[in-house]
Amino acid sequence: MTDQSTPAVSSSPVPRQSGGGDSARAGVSRRRLLGTAGATGLVLGAAGAAAGYASAPAGATPLTSLGAGRAMFHGKHQPGITDPLQSCGHLIAFDLAAGAGRKEAAALLRRWSATAEHLMAGEPAPHGDTGVARDAGPSSLTLTFGFGRTFFDRTGLQGQRPAALDPLPDFSSDHLDKSRSEGDLWVQIGADDALVAFHALRAVQKDAGSAARVRWQMNGFNRSPGATAHPMTARNLMGQIDGTRNPKPSDADFNKRIFVPAAGEPAWMAGGSYAVVRRIRMLLDDWEKLSLTQQENVIGRRKADGAPLSGGTETTAMDLEKTGADGSYVIPVNAHARITRPDQNGGAAMVRRPFSYHDGFDADGAPDAGLLFICWQADPLRGFVPVQRKLDRGDALSQYIRHEASGLFAVPGGAAKGEYVGQRLLEG
Amino acid sequence: MTDQSTPAVSSSPVPRQSGGGDSARAGVSRRRLLGTAGATGLVLGAAGAAAGYASAPAGATPLTSLGAGRAMFHGKHQPGITDPLQSCGHLIAFDLAAGAGRKEAAALLRRWSATAEHLMAGEPAPHGDTGVARDAGPSSLTLTFGFGRTFFDRTGLQGQRPAALDPLPDFSSDHLDKSRSEGDLWVQIGADDALVAFHALRAVQKDAGSAARVRWQMNGFNRSPGATAHPMTARNLMGQIDGTRNPKPSDADFNKRIFVPAAGEPAWMAGGSYAVVRRIRMLLDDWEKLSLTQQENVIGRRKADGAPLSGGTETTAMDLEKTGADGSYVIPVNAHARITRPDQNGGAAMVRRPFSYHDGFDADGAPDAGLLFICWQADPLRGFVPVQRKLDRGDALSQYIRHEASGLFAVPGGAAKGEYVGQRLLEG
Repeated sequence: MTDQSTPAVSSSPVPRQSGGGDSARAGVSRRRLLGTAGATGLVLGAAGAAAGYASAPAGATPLTSLGAGRAMFHGKHQPGITDPLQSCGHLIAFDLAAGAGRKEAAALLRRWSATAEHLMAGEPAPHGDTGVARDAGPSSLTLTFGFGRTFFDRTGLQGQRPAALDPLPDFSSDHLDKSRSEGDLWVQIGADDALVAFHALRAVQKDAGSAARVRWQMNGFNRSPGATAHPMTARNLMGQIDGTRNPKPSDADFNKRIFVPAAGEPAWMAGGSYAVVRRIRMLLDDWEKLSLTQQENVIGRRKADGAPLSGGTETTAMDLEKTGADGSYVIPVNAHARITRPDQNGGAAMVRRPFSYHDGFDADGAPDAGLLFICWQADPLRGFVPVQRKLDRGDALSQYIRHEASGLFAVPGGAAKGEYVGQRLLEG
Repeated sequence: MTDQSTPAVSSSPVPRQSGGGDSARAGVSRRRLLGTAGATGLVLGAAGAAAGYASAPAGATPLTSLGAGRAMFHGKHQPGITDPLQSCGHLIAFDLAAGAGRKEAAALLRRWSATAEHLMAGEPAPHGDTGVARDAGPSSLTLTFGFGRTFFDRTGLQGQRPAALDPLPDFSSDHLDKSRSEGDLWVQIGADDALVAFHALRAVQKDAGSAARVRWQMNGFNRSPGATAHPMTARNLMGQIDGTRNPKPSDADFNKRIFVPAAGEPAWMAGGSYAVVRRIRMLLDDWEKLSLTQQENVIGRRKADGAPLSGGTETTAMDLEKTGADGSYVIPVNAHARITRPDQNGGAAMVRRPFSYHDGFDADGAPDAGLLFICWQADPLRGFVPVQRKLDRGDALSQYIRHEASGLFAVPGGAAKGEYVGQRLLEG
């Protein structure tokens, strides 16, 4: 069975991602508890002490596994794409300031890259540090940088703009707030500690200086490592297991579907990926009025364990033809899981790597909460778009969600040592 | 040296609270890693399995220490006062609905108490569960319930209103948003997992039903357990170590200063405490423009380790008379730590147990971030008020913070088995 990806709020319970990319973090395993950080990682006790920043004073407790988790800044791909979900996330988009162009953008990406490299190693920010993350380990911090469609106009780089950044089609379910959508530049921050994440967010903002101003910013979260006995699943704020059937780095065609190949177009995107970002509000007051059976029929899977309504376990293939005593399909025709099944979407594949969000309550008491949906693919026209088109035409889930903001960003490959993210574009 | 408490944004680096109350959680210790939950706690593998809720399926990873952390609902005091800071917090205030009075309030407190008891044990909410926390352990969840001044008018219980709920004096630095201040009822939620905390927040809101409507709600966070090698300190978003000199449950006079005594007034508050809640915005753009030396002079302590500028370590007493080469005091006359020193505040004592908050950025790019300051004391007129009065008259820190919301709540003692929180008031 091929891998499947479902955009929007997915029914498909999937695995906490693990083992992807250069991450040194892999759920809560004995490896974590021993305070080591995997094959490519470093134990922070050593790295931090060398930097004189997070070193423990005599007699202090040694850095524990959570703080010591470390993802690598340098590599073929940027971090934050295949690394395990972190418990805290920030998304922030910037527009270049009036008068800022290619030169200022290059300088900014150079600053951001230096900041990311240091912070991800648990070291202070190189351009002035606020001290907020002092004492803490890197806590699996990742920073990921992307370019929006408008970036190329502002920098005179129209000739380098990927066709994949053409605007997404309108979907009938969209209620998009333009002021919280798109942007010249986009940064994704994730960490397993809220102060480490906030520290990085402030550093990124300060680095922007007079070159760029904040366009929008969103905060999100996921389950804390170790909170659940089921490390292979995550739940969203509807209570659904979310993430099953995400492509895995061990899949034979994973790289091809998620990352732009070395010979791809444009050349500066080799090793890169495209991120589709959607702020998907969940209409929880309506959703929670449904009975468990109604909710499961909307999704097509069992809420408890994510198994298809046709039976089995979380990873069992759906039996779409199975009928109940009354002759109707056990998995309803408009069930979210049926509509997003892979054979209906041309083998579309994307890695979904979301954060939940909760920004308080509206005046009428309705929670402003849902999913910061982020998906990654080599080509949005083969990943997000076809799946969302299907959903747009009859997904039972659509009346319980609302897409309120949208962004599409070209995320270049990882920086080699001595290089900054986006250098191949900005100095190409 | 007596204990000292400083309101507002404190300079005094203090200990991650531990061992207080009925909590089963105490930093990241070997005890945690072994998955046990302390003297009074239960290992969730047992409790959860009994409830059929968080039990692990065959072959699954056992519940890890973070999820298994459990605070007790029943006890002399409510949970969430002396328990260790959790990484995720929600504050929510309600006003009783038009027509709702003492009877509806009693029913609501009964529902809330049942919900708190179940959720804190890692079990589903008794009045309908959203499934959001399914699979997870209690993750050190606490729910704490309080009554605001207006509650007593609405319920005809004016005769039972404590004098301690008299309005706080105005402070010159106040910029209070009344719509985000006070309230008939207040609930504090804390947990080490964001989904567990959100799940509890939704349960509390749903329990309110038609009896009460949300007045305001705020989200906060603290460092994740295990992110730092310094488990005895916490930092705020100014990068300051925050919490030194918090009274400790092991102090001889701790109970007297923090909790209303058995023979106290009014009788229904025996074992209770008063919570002062202040949303204190930090003007981080201004603060971060200061040099390290300037910041340390504002606070009177070293940023790195919280030691007084007069020397020593975090726990060394300040030498207020010490002068530098130029003859001026090493700890400036308006330094935050000098002004809040205990001998100037009549031995005021309160337990500060805050969350940081970050609600995005203003239109001008300034972060809406700071501290959800929460302090606990047997008498606000001997705890928060005298210290805040001092600060109001010349604290060097005051120009970098802004008190934007305020609440004062009577938090009754813990419920005995078979009792609900506030029953002694509502059925007294």
